[in-house]
Amino acid sequence: MKEPVSEQSIDCTHSVTVKEGFVIWLTGLSGSGKSTLALELSAKLNTFIHTEILDGDQVRQNLSKGLSFSKEDRDENVNRIGFVANLIARTGGCCIVAVISPYKESRELQRQRITNFFEIYCTCPIEKLIERDTKGLYKKAINGDINHFTGINDPYEEPDNPNLIIDSNKLSIEESVNIILSKIKELFINQ
Amino acid sequence: MKEPVSEQSIDCTHSVTVKEGFVIWLTGLSGSGKSTLALELSAKLNTFIHTEILDGDQVRQNLSKGLSFSKEDRDENVNRIGFVANLIARTGGCCIVAVISPYKESRELQRQRITNFFEIYCTCPIEKLIERDTKGLYKKAINGDINHFTGINDPYEEPDNPNLIIDSNKLSIEESVNIILSKIKELFINQ
Repeated sequence: MKEPVSEQSIDCTHSVTVKEGFVIWLTGLSGSGKSTLALELSAKLNTFIHTEILDGDQVRQNLSKGLSFSKEDRDENVNRIGFVANLIARTGGCCIVAVISPYKESRELQRQRITNFFEIYCTCPIEKLIERDTKGLYKKAINGDINHFTGINDPYEEPDNPNLIIDSNKLSIEESVNIILSKIKELFINQ
Repeated sequence: MKEPVSEQSIDCTHSVTVKEGFVIWLTGLSGSGKSTLALELSAKLNTFIHTEILDGDQVRQNLSKGLSFSKEDRDENVNRIGFVANLIARTGGCCIVAVISPYKESRELQRQRITNFFEIYCTCPIEKLIERDTKGLYKKAINGDINHFTGINDPYEEPDNPNLIIDSNKLSIEESVNIILSKIKELFINQ
């Protein structure tokens, strides 16, 4: 017999049960596809678990107004995001974090704090990112008009052991979403 | 037949169903009983809805490091708390906020943002608070050793229409908790 709250059908012919809340942490350079993936994933996940996105820009507005892009302030920003993402997961929801979060140590601190933590490294060759440059930020950084721009004049530390690597230069959004969902279901959802 | 997730028995002989998440916002001067109430309420509520406390000191550490006690920074602090409390409620949990939050307008902004918002004004005559002074802060503020101390050298704007007023000079903790729980059940919980 179906239990209306804990069990709902989704995109497939059989029903699924969400075990408990979890956090999907998307890290990577500006333009690597984090926000797009977050939106697409959220649309799929929301059909069976309440999902919230914490996106870089939105977080700077709502939690981290006044913080700079120094290492210290970036770490503080990531800590606040981890604190909030953890609250959402503990409440039984899914939190998708989409922030550059360039420092390995501060990401690892969040992994330690959050029980169900799934790190995805969104990668793409920097030449491609400079070529795309949808927001025109890479050009500005290269010209020296923006300081502390990750990948150009600020460091990005790649994860050693992310749960997944998604290369947006090789995979379509749809392919990426399918790969991620399949892993998420395996880990956090009973089928 | 009982549904294990949506329906659980609590402190009474019949079962209850939580409708959706909500926020209990405790406002009032330092020493008026906010944190104590939050802890007692949380213990009761956690048996049938996941409950998180956002307490003044903990929030200053995790979300608002670096903010001062100026009006502008207090408003920013309250905004961040409202943002997070709302996420917890949307995920289906209960968030108990226990912060002085002295400005009416900034509390009202949270009421507008949060669907199920329950404001409790924790009150107590200031003479009694100065008499109790468990943390020794009132003495320091009166002596001028602390600036921006609400009620002594910083304003507190009483709520016009709180959902409840709890006077810790007249009610025991147990009585207060019972009054609050009875209202909460009426509004947010099907019995």
